[in-house]
Amino acid sequence: MRTYFDHASSSPVRETVVKFLASGECRAYLNPSSVHYEGQKSKSFISNARETLSQRLNVDFDNFLFTSSGTESCNYIINLAVEALNVENFIYLPTEHTAVIDAISSKNLNNIICPVNNNGLIDIDYCEEIMKQTKGKKLLCAMHINNETGIIQPIEQISELCRRHEALFFCDMIQSLGKVDIDLKKMQVDFASFASHKIGGVHGVGAVYMKDASLLHKDILGGSQEFGRRGGTENVIGISAFGVALEDVYSNMEQEKALINKLNLQMTKGLHNISQDIIIVSQGSNKVPSISSILFPGLKSENLLIALDMDGFAVSSGAACSSGKVGNSHVLEAMGYNENESSGAIRISFGWGNNEQQVTLFLNALNNLLKGMNFKD
Amino acid sequence: MRTYFDHASSSPVRETVVKFLASGECRAYLNPSSVHYEGQKSKSFISNARETLSQRLNVDFDNFLFTSSGTESCNYIINLAVEALNVENFIYLPTEHTAVIDAISSKNLNNIICPVNNNGLIDIDYCEEIMKQTKGKKLLCAMHINNETGIIQPIEQISELCRRHEALFFCDMIQSLGKVDIDLKKMQVDFASFASHKIGGVHGVGAVYMKDASLLHKDILGGSQEFGRRGGTENVIGISAFGVALEDVYSNMEQEKALINKLNLQMTKGLHNISQDIIIVSQGSNKVPSISSILFPGLKSENLLIALDMDGFAVSSGAACSSGKVGNSHVLEAMGYNENESSGAIRISFGWGNNEQQVTLFLNALNNLLKGMNFKD
Repeated sequence: MRTYFDHASSSPVRETVVKFLASGECRAYLNPSSVHYEGQKSKSFISNARETLSQRLNVDFDNFLFTSSGTESCNYIINLAVEALNVENFIYLPTEHTAVIDAISSKNLNNIICPVNNNGLIDIDYCEEIMKQTKGKKLLCAMHINNETGIIQPIEQISELCRRHEALFFCDMIQSLGKVDIDLKKMQVDFASFASHKIGGVHGVGAVYMKDASLLHKDILGGSQEFGRRGGTENVIGISAFGVALEDVYSNMEQEKALINKLNLQMTKGLHNISQDIIIVSQGSNKVPSISSILFPGLKSENLLIALDMDGFAVSSGAACSSGKVGNSHVLEAMGYNENESSGAIRISFGWGNNEQQVTLFLNALNNLLKGMNFKD
Repeated sequence: MRTYFDHASSSPVRETVVKFLASGECRAYLNPSSVHYEGQKSKSFISNARETLSQRLNVDFDNFLFTSSGTESCNYIINLAVEALNVENFIYLPTEHTAVIDAISSKNLNNIICPVNNNGLIDIDYCEEIMKQTKGKKLLCAMHINNETGIIQPIEQISELCRRHEALFFCDMIQSLGKVDIDLKKMQVDFASFASHKIGGVHGVGAVYMKDASLLHKDILGGSQEFGRRGGTENVIGISAFGVALEDVYSNMEQEKALINKLNLQMTKGLHNISQDIIIVSQGSNKVPSISSILFPGLKSENLLIALDMDGFAVSSGAACSSGKVGNSHVLEAMGYNENESSGAIRISFGWGNNEQQVTLFLNALNNLLKGMNFKD
């Protein structure tokens, strides 16, 4: 029996989604661009998922574009900013996902990093100074919940700052969907990105939110799908499964939050009991209980990962997006952790299906491993 | 009971794929980039599908990149040609899919249209003249089987011409996969594109073949997935379903070919019996029996489509990629059909699951409709 504590990397497909996939409904999924009954029915499946997304996030239907991943969504927003809105300046946190950082870097425009404090939170005064000094169109990129540490940025404060300085605001919400309440109207972000597999839908589906629904940028050419924003036949089954997962998440959000909160308290207490040398990043700061970065100074992440894996526990070293590579985290570095600390980092992320017994087993296994690795107080 | 004759737009999910989706195997689909057991297992599912594709098409494993659609695949190849190979000239058929034409047009480079004859076949002598007169790196784009007419281009002849003139050759094989034998080694194309939903896999999966496996272009940034060619968590379930559909197609190809051949003969004969004024595009030329463009001069496609749809038959007017729009076909125009002819075009495309009774019912329904529309000999 294995224990999966890597929901931030990919949450297992929810049982409602398994049931949906097993229903055979996919037999009716044809080309949503076709004029005939089968085509229009397929189109309605996509519309239903878009409707669910827009209702849950409190904005209009046509503010959403479906893509093939969270990464494509982040890329799309950066590309749109440059090509459709003539953005010349990118201001971003050093703790953003590489899907944002790499897309920004590829533009060779004016890139300004806005530092974060030791807890990973944006330095809002510094950010304001940057804004004041930056001429021309600007886009601020700040993710809602960090994928490695679980830190929650003060989105409404950032969005208010952006409005004051006429900057556009892109908030990567890939890790926050389903974990905290999201009211896009209230948050007043200009753009947001989402990914289905982080909430227990299937892989291969992402979404872009854009406040201005009249924007019509296209990265993939050759068809007028998705309101003319993305060529290519839509992933009908994946988008529908995203809708199913969303309904499931929102119907069970309070219970899941309570469960994860409990597991996090148990884990935190257990880790402190094992050793005072274990560091839980940003503990006590404003973070979600579902994601924790845990440092074992002097140890190597890869050794811990592999040993835990062999004992039946799936955790990660940080972001999973680098094809099986284990490297030091740019997020921890930006927060001021030294190499000795960050090279011994593992990320534990909880989600649906986890339970207290798993945490107990994990703590026991970890305790034994650390003894074997001579990790001491 | 409805009859679906629009396989070229999207083929219904095969029963083997329905079974695969119902198996619950998706519970094991996590992040293929994760180091742990669950991640590595997920990675192996993708590798299995890639292995199937490469074996069936007779080339190596790492010559394939999985994307989110045929359209993305076509775009990727055009982008790669410009950004990684410095292609300055695009030579292409006027009958290519918009996924190719729109991507080429966006580059603002030297675009040369190589005409086709009345049967839709490439004018190979003219093409050679173009090649001789074109200085600098060039890419020829010619699709294997046309999506509207079913015309088969002489790929080996084109590829030989390209080699003689040091041009790269991109062959869009989205409609040919599973319909005719494809041996990429023998065909010697440099690039090819594929889409899962045209063979009865699920939507949301495409593939790119590249002869030079060392090419490392990236359209989507922020992760080193797919051998460093595409950022973003892979569509594990969709790619696996593509593998299942491929196995199914190749196991049943001879029977399916024989069936479709029979249906096509029945349809052709039936249409000629209804009226000698009905034109079957490129009949008698080298075309696949699965796709036929049928012209009813003087009638309007949309009226025929809607009337047939109401009678229970799903056909299309041509490509489905323009979000429910019915417009005149650029393919038929390039082949020299006048507006009176092409504005009354419908496309019938057969696939797995079709049978003779459906063709009989269709011919009866069409005959009645045409009487009502005063379409006469």
